Amino acid sequence: MTDLSNDAETRLRNSFAAQSLMTFAGAEVDRCAHGLFRISSPIPNDMRQQHDFGHAALTFALGDTAAGYAAMSVMRPDQEVLTAEMKIQLLAPAKGQRLVAEGRIIKAGRRLIPVEADVWAEDGDKTTHIARLIGTMIPVDIPVAAT
Amino acid sequence: MTDLSNDAETRLRNSFAAQSLMTFAGAEVDRCAHGLFRISSPIPNDMRQQHDFGHAALTFALGDTAAGYAAMSVMRPDQEVLTAEMKIQLLAPAKGQRLVAEGRIIKAGRRLIPVEADVWAEDGDKTTHIARLIGTMIPVDIPVAAT
Amino acid sequence: MTDLSNDAETRLRNSFAAQSLMTFAGAEVDRCAHGLFRISSPIPNDMRQQHDFGHAALTFALGDTAAGYAAMSVMRPDQEVLTAEMKIQLLAPAKGQRLVAEGRIIKAGRRLIPVEADVWAEDGDKTTHIARLIGTMIPVDIPVAAT
Amino acid sequence: MTDLSNDAETRLRNSFAAQSLMTFAGAEVDRCAHGLFRISSPIPNDMRQQHDFGHAALTFALGDTAAGYAAMSVMRPDQEVLTAEMKIQLLAPAKGQRLVAEGRIIKAGRRLIPVEADVWAEDGDKTTHIARLIGTMIPVDIPVAAT
Repeated sequence: MTDLSNDAETRLRNSFAAQSLMTFAGAEVDRCAHGLFRISSPIPNDMRQQHDFGHAALTFALGDTAAGYAAMSVMRPDQEVLTAEMKIQLLAPAKGQRLVAEGRIIKAGRRLIPVEADVWAEDGDKTTHIARLIGTMIPVDIPVAAT
Repeated sequence: MTDLSNDAETRLRNSFAAQSLMTFAGAEVDRCAHGLFRISSPIPNDMRQQHDFGHAALTFALGDTAAGYAAMSVMRPDQEVLTAEMKIQLLAPAKGQRLVAEGRIIKAGRRLIPVEADVWAEDGDKTTHIARLIGTMIPVDIPVAAT
Repeated sequence: MTDLSNDAETRLRNSFAAQSLMTFAGAEVDRCAHGLFRISSPIPNDMRQQHDFGHAALTFALGDTAAGYAAMSVMRPDQEVLTAEMKIQLLAPAKGQRLVAEGRIIKAGRRLIPVEADVWAEDGDKTTHIARLIGTMIPVDIPVAAT
Repeated sequence: MTDLSNDAETRLRNSFAAQSLMTFAGAEVDRCAHGLFRISSPIPNDMRQQHDFGHAALTFALGDTAAGYAAMSVMRPDQEVLTAEMKIQLLAPAKGQRLVAEGRIIKAGRRLIPVEADVWAEDGDKTTHIARLIGTMIPVDIPVAAT
């Protein structure tokens, strides 16, 4: 895993910090490398489903965001990233104190960047694999245009 | 489209109302029928991405939730629903004042319920189709057990 | 549904005819319009699974091909189509005499074309919906380059 | 990776051999373990797309089949496997002399078995990762009933 330049890392962290959903969830960047991005978050009281576990959309949010920045880390500095499509396989309920998501690129394509992510729930001493995501990111020139 | 009994509709609406994420987003149930569920929501300031559009996870949340209750509407009264997997195809940014999501069952299977959903953004007079989802719901006996 | 020009239809039919898998399966083009492509095929003895139904890969082949040409029908004449990713939801076994697949574009994007397809099995008088597909096609300039 | 009992391995190999599509393609079982199944195949002249590369449906067939038997390897002896849904991410054309597919279970669920597979193309000395698949297998009692 190659480290990013300071400039590149700053660019990714600033973009991440500009997502109000990530700020609201209390999500943080834990690891930032070439083609890999890891974040973690508590399970806010306002982001739960009907049995008080984390909502699937929170798991999706973390996995999709981690995968998106993993893709952005291999793009040109004047490019932003958009999710074209994403599939999530839910493996277990989002139960615990903290969720961790790691996104990785599958291939650094020029036009499309296939990505994947895993999400785990930390519940006391126990860590459970709760989701795998796979999807497609596309680079868009800044300022972002519609696809 | 067949209407639901009052009991069935109440059961679905109560489960929906118990999702803190839906409450926090300000989402409402607009239509509730056998195999179809339609909801809508504003785009809260706290659920945006880095360009101030709605986060893909909000679009996912609405589509997945609408699809889930469409599936639950064809299940037995003593069953709850879990998303096993879901794919979202993002078609346009979540830009506007309000998002509308309609979930439908593709087939009322006994063990698996394939579902789909569409999400639209209302921006002034303009309505844009922003996402299509397709996935798999499974019935689980109450109280909900891990799959 | 808008008809295609004779040139455009010929281009699509020639490309379809150049797929040895379609020829081997005995597949035929049934309908060819702007954004829609319908094909049908028998279930060859050599394309079955272990219970003698059509293999899921045959269902996939027909759905993916119908969706691909639906996308190609809205592209420029000097462009070919590639499947970037595709999800298939299998609803029932491929049982019967003939399979029919209809592909449609969801949106005529410039860089990505989200598509969907349905596949039905005809068994005597009965027609069963056996699969729905959703995925992403991309235009590639001729001659086809790697993505 | 745990080996299978002789009985279990024989059961999987017999089921694989009963798939006419696998026989027709010339596919062979290369590895058979608890939760993992690896197969390989040439690219038959009759299974190509319009540019003479392997058809995406062949890549799908190998990935889906490898994933299916990986799932069946963790099921009870009186159970068969069905693909409920599968997503394929195509990374590069199926170009070369031989395709290799490895299927793995993500989790050994009781009701659903999430699986993944990778497919590679061997072209002379070069091996290229051409696809990743992720999907859901379900156990069905023998004799196989519709889902």
